[in-house]
Amino acid sequence: MAAPRMGLRARLYAPEADPPAAHVAPVTRGAWDDADALAAFAASVDVVTLEFENVPLGAVETLAPLVPVRPGARALAVAQDRLTEKRFLNEAGARTAPFAPVEDAASLGAALAALGLPAILKTRRLGYDGKGQARLNSAADAPAALAAMGGAPAILEGFAPFAREVSVVIARGADGATRAYDPGENVHRDGILRTTTVPAALDADAAARAVAVATRIVDALGYVGVLGVELFHMPDGAFWVNEIAPRVHNTGHWTINACAVDQFEQHLRAVCGWPLGDPRRHCDAVMENLIGDDDAAWPRLAAEPGAALHLYGKAGARPGRKMGHVTRTTPRR
Amino acid sequence: MAAPRMGLRARLYAPEADPPAAHVAPVTRGAWDDADALAAFAASVDVVTLEFENVPLGAVETLAPLVPVRPGARALAVAQDRLTEKRFLNEAGARTAPFAPVEDAASLGAALAALGLPAILKTRRLGYDGKGQARLNSAADAPAALAAMGGAPAILEGFAPFAREVSVVIARGADGATRAYDPGENVHRDGILRTTTVPAALDADAAARAVAVATRIVDALGYVGVLGVELFHMPDGAFWVNEIAPRVHNTGHWTINACAVDQFEQHLRAVCGWPLGDPRRHCDAVMENLIGDDDAAWPRLAAEPGAALHLYGKAGARPGRKMGHVTRTTPRR
Repeated sequence: MAAPRMGLRARLYAPEADPPAAHVAPVTRGAWDDADALAAFAASVDVVTLEFENVPLGAVETLAPLVPVRPGARALAVAQDRLTEKRFLNEAGARTAPFAPVEDAASLGAALAALGLPAILKTRRLGYDGKGQARLNSAADAPAALAAMGGAPAILEGFAPFAREVSVVIARGADGATRAYDPGENVHRDGILRTTTVPAALDADAAARAVAVATRIVDALGYVGVLGVELFHMPDGAFWVNEIAPRVHNTGHWTINACAVDQFEQHLRAVCGWPLGDPRRHCDAVMENLIGDDDAAWPRLAAEPGAALHLYGKAGARPGRKMGHVTRTTPRR
Repeated sequence: MAAPRMGLRARLYAPEADPPAAHVAPVTRGAWDDADALAAFAASVDVVTLEFENVPLGAVETLAPLVPVRPGARALAVAQDRLTEKRFLNEAGARTAPFAPVEDAASLGAALAALGLPAILKTRRLGYDGKGQARLNSAADAPAALAAMGGAPAILEGFAPFAREVSVVIARGADGATRAYDPGENVHRDGILRTTTVPAALDADAAARAVAVATRIVDALGYVGVLGVELFHMPDGAFWVNEIAPRVHNTGHWTINACAVDQFEQHLRAVCGWPLGDPRRHCDAVMENLIGDDDAAWPRLAAEPGAALHLYGKAGARPGRKMGHVTRTTPRR
C-alpha cells in the first residue's frame, strides 16, 4: 500500500490462493520451493523484499543470485531461530536475558539449574504472539512445558524483571545510513501487543541508548530495510533485547499517522535505494491494536475525534487475531 | 488506495486499457455507454463513486437504478457545465463572478457590454487546469477568444479582483452531516495549482464564512461524498465561488499528512455510510504540486527533512502534467 504512493509498482509472490495483499497488488502464486516460479518472479521485478520472517530460507537463497533480496538470507536465518538470534545479539554486543538451549528433559534440567526460576521455555522457530511458549514458575512445571514444545528444539530464557518494554523501529540503507523512529513503549496482554505509546517514558539519554542498541544490530547484520527491535528497559537502566523482526513492525504502525515518512515507505526506500526519510514524529501517538472481536467497535472508533482507524479486511475474527488498529495523535508535548 | 486501509475492497470501471489505478485494484474494462458491462459492474459492488466529474451522465443514469451512486447525477450535471454550475450556485445563495452565456460573436459582444473588461471566456464543458480558457483584455481579443472555443458553447466570466484564492474541501454524509477541512490558500501559476497552504490567511470569522458557503452548496445539492469548493476572497471580505468539483480535490491533498482522516478516506466514509471523520488538522501544511518535469527533483525531495513525497507513477512527464506532490508539515502555530 505504500508503493503506489511512491510511484512504485508492487508484485507479490505467495503460496496461498488468496493472500490478503491480493487486493492491492497482482500476485504470482507459487510454492516456496518452486525454483521455476521463483525465477520467473525474479525476472519480473527489480528488487525483492519480505513481508514476514518465516519465508523459508531456501526461497531466498534461490532468489538471491537472480535479483537483490533485501533484507537477505543472513538476517532471515538469524531471526528465524531464537537461539541463533540470541547468540548473534550477544556477539554484536547487545544484551539479552540469559538463555540456554533445550532439546530434552536433561538439557531443560541443566538450563533451569543455570538460569533459575521463573523462566520461559520457547520453541526456537516459528513462535509469535505468545504461541509456542510456556512459563515455568517451579521445577514441577518442567514436564508440561517440555511437552508444550511438541518435540521441537527449544530455548529456555531467564526471566527479565523489566521496568518497561520499548521498541525501536530502525531503517538501514544499502549505503549503511541508518534512521530510527523515536522509541515506542509497548504494553502486551496475553502475549499480544495491545498498545504502543510514543514517546516512551525514557529520558533523552536512555532513548539514545536504545537507538544505539538497534543501530549496532542492523550494522552487525549488514541489514537493508526496516527492522523492529523489542527491548526490555531494566531497572538498572540497561536495555536487553527481547527479539528482533526483520520487517516492518506492529510497534511502528503509529508512524503512519505521526511521521512524514512512515515505516512502510521507509522500508521501501531502503530496499529500493532511495534516500532514507526523516523519521521525526510531528505528533505524539498511541497505537492500539484491535484484537479478536475488538473491531466490532469500528463505528464508535470511526466517529472518535482524532482517531485514525485502520481495518485489515481479514475474513473473520478469531480470538487473538489482529484485525486492525487505531492511532490517536496529539500535539507533541 | 484509501479503501484497503479501511478494510474495503475497491473495484474500478474504466474504458481505458490500462488506467493508472489498475495497479491498486482490479479493473472492469467497459465503455461508458455499455449498459451490459455497467450492469455487471453494478452487480459486483455495494456502492459506486466517481473519480472525476466528466464521467458521462448517461453512465450514471444507467447505474443509478441498480446500485447507489454517490455523488449522483445531479451533482455531476451541475459540475459538468460551467453555466449550469454558476446558475445553481447563485440560486443556492452563493456568490460568483458575473457571467453570461456565449455561443457566437453576437452573444459575446453582448456579454462583454454587460460584464466589462477584463473578462475570461471559457468552454462550458470539459475545461480544467486553464484549458479551454481565453482571457480578454480588450474588445480586440474577442475574435481570437471565440475561435479558441472551437465552436463549443461558452461562458464569459467577469474578472474577479480577488485578494486571495482559498478552497474548502467538505464532506457530506447520506444523513446530511457535514464536515469541512480548514480552508487552504491556493496559488496558481499558468492556470495550474502550485501550492495549497493551511491555514489560509483568514481570520476565524472569514474561515467560518468560507465553510458556510461550502455547506450551503453541498446541502443544496443533497450531496454525498467529498466536494471541493474553490473560492475567491474578495477585497470587501466576501467569498465568490470560482468552481466546485464533485470529488476529492487537489487542494485537499495536504489532509493525507496533516489529518487523522484524509479526504480520500472521508470520501469513502461518506459514500459507504460510515460516520464522517474528524477533519481537524494536527499540523500546519504546505502542499506543492510537482508539475511537468518537477518530479525529476525527487531524490532531493525524498531526502528533505519533514517532506512527504507522493509520486503518481504516471508513465511520462508532459508540460503541465501533475506528476506528484510534496507536503511539508510543521507544528500548528
